[in-house]
Amino acid sequence: MKALVYMGPGKKEWKDAPKPILVDPTDAIVKVLKTTICGTDLHILKGDVPAVTAGRILGHEGVGIVEEVGSAVNNFKKGDHVLISCITSCGKCEYCKKQMYAHCEDGGWILGHLIDGTQAEVVRIPHADNSLYPIPPKANEEALVMLSDILPTGHEIGVLNGAVKPGDIVAIVGAGPVGMSVLLTAQFYSPAQIIMIDTDESRLELAKKFGATQTINPAKNDVLKIITEQTKDGVDVAIEAVGIPETFNICQDIIRPGGHIANVGVHGKSVDLQLQKLWIKNITITTGLVNTNTTSMLLKTVESKKIQPEQLITHRFTFDQMLEAYEVFSNAAREKTMKVIISNG
Amino acid sequence: MKALVYMGPGKKEWKDAPKPILVDPTDAIVKVLKTTICGTDLHILKGDVPAVTAGRILGHEGVGIVEEVGSAVNNFKKGDHVLISCITSCGKCEYCKKQMYAHCEDGGWILGHLIDGTQAEVVRIPHADNSLYPIPPKANEEALVMLSDILPTGHEIGVLNGAVKPGDIVAIVGAGPVGMSVLLTAQFYSPAQIIMIDTDESRLELAKKFGATQTINPAKNDVLKIITEQTKDGVDVAIEAVGIPETFNICQDIIRPGGHIANVGVHGKSVDLQLQKLWIKNITITTGLVNTNTTSMLLKTVESKKIQPEQLITHRFTFDQMLEAYEVFSNAAREKTMKVIISNG
Repeated sequence: MKALVYMGPGKKEWKDAPKPILVDPTDAIVKVLKTTICGTDLHILKGDVPAVTAGRILGHEGVGIVEEVGSAVNNFKKGDHVLISCITSCGKCEYCKKQMYAHCEDGGWILGHLIDGTQAEVVRIPHADNSLYPIPPKANEEALVMLSDILPTGHEIGVLNGAVKPGDIVAIVGAGPVGMSVLLTAQFYSPAQIIMIDTDESRLELAKKFGATQTINPAKNDVLKIITEQTKDGVDVAIEAVGIPETFNICQDIIRPGGHIANVGVHGKSVDLQLQKLWIKNITITTGLVNTNTTSMLLKTVESKKIQPEQLITHRFTFDQMLEAYEVFSNAAREKTMKVIISNG
Repeated sequence: MKALVYMGPGKKEWKDAPKPILVDPTDAIVKVLKTTICGTDLHILKGDVPAVTAGRILGHEGVGIVEEVGSAVNNFKKGDHVLISCITSCGKCEYCKKQMYAHCEDGGWILGHLIDGTQAEVVRIPHADNSLYPIPPKANEEALVMLSDILPTGHEIGVLNGAVKPGDIVAIVGAGPVGMSVLLTAQFYSPAQIIMIDTDESRLELAKKFGATQTINPAKNDVLKIITEQTKDGVDVAIEAVGIPETFNICQDIIRPGGHIANVGVHGKSVDLQLQKLWIKNITITTGLVNTNTTSMLLKTVESKKIQPEQLITHRFTFDQMLEAYEVFSNAAREKTMKVIISNG
């Protein structure tokens, strides 16, 4: 089969790779129908994630059809259409029993990281009963690919951790795919205002289309000044969806007493927490890798068209255009890329 | 009357001051029977709290007898014994209606800060109906002085914000009066282990007496190494009760995935938050000034002897020994001081 293989920092190839086979009785072998690329894949390619070794097939998102299941798989059979979760979970360990699947002791984020992933014609999914979701054969597969990772990430680590409530003023810092997922799912809980903050004007335009009540470009405007003028004493919820100190600092600056800062971004270095100002403010800061414990809920919201995550897809490719898809996704500002879909034929 | 007056950085005097009178109809004038000194008073004396100006009477803790009430005070009358809360609350503003009394728009921490405080023979208490608590005439007044500030601070900002649960492993960093208050009130919720961490051996000994299951002196031992050896992957709850980067760093190091860091310490500078490690750990960090919304609950636990906060009192003085009390409290390590009580005659 063909697969996108990481060949060490800065190097990737679309090349022949051995087709995966069942290893454990809880495995499923899934033919990938559609996959996508995540910002995390670009981090890996830069060499930022040393646990990923040369030869690894990347990708942790996708939908597919089950080709074969191990003897211990109960919920799926050959021919079933499935959503692949970015999080693999055994369902049996201490963390799984707390619904903290991100920290599963025999799983977590392993696809396209510690084991071969979904940017391939076929993928092996361990603990299939807990790591796949059934989808109807006629589902909007492109929309559902957004539920492998970014939608649950935005919803759980942004909106739920941030405790977004009706009437709240919510700021989202970062209008990338995950920030947009926060924007879409925050609206489930009827906040009064959603302020999207980003330096990319075309992304801010898109955010308005997706429901942002206001946008601020910190390259052109003083975010703190605007928020101070418009709110009594800051925002109720500030959601960091970039992963750099500058964007975390915006969140620290604009949070009101009693507010929540939900960190969603993947950070490569530490941040300077202004505890000399924040100790007295009764705030809550949360962090997290997605647990995907709301994926089933999100599937229902997509089926009922309460949200339409296919809006996030800006470019479509076929598997043989995988390298081109990476090129377009890597140059998001120039190409105005949000999410890409790569289809198997 | 006599009062402890802040005379500018580094200077204080026990001197004559005008007796307070009713200003607003919601005021009460209270004769102070017993008061104490807080670490915050020492910060003020160093000049660390510039909002406190020369001429201010310090102190925000105490019990007393009502001498006079304004025309709008309903819950108290002359002769009532009362506990004075460190937090003044109007009961009417947006924050009071959320039980966030610390951020009351016409109160909060103002006693001995923005208005004259309790280290005096008589004190004026604004919004008396919401800022005083009735106590029986024969109550253990010394114990109740601990409920003006440190007990609710430890309980609300440490134990409740940290979400201490039955079976948890809890680490408390800092065995001062507030850390000890965390230790006493954490036991309401039956954690499996409470590990007290401090560099003062005599305080660690006291912590064992008060219920710590283990103590660690970071000046002599590697805290992270010990916690790593003893726990599966860190502590469930780490409570910072000092207010310096070093102690906050211990909390960051030892917290397990899904754990809570509750910051109680008053910080003078920023800390380096290790978000490159913590983003993935699904942790919660909280901060806060005490709201005193559990003071009534704590009064019942003291009355029923579920906790005995008088254990925290190591030294007793009379009002005319106020300067000596400060001397002993300022040299806590040498004098083995935890809390002092200063009695009006």
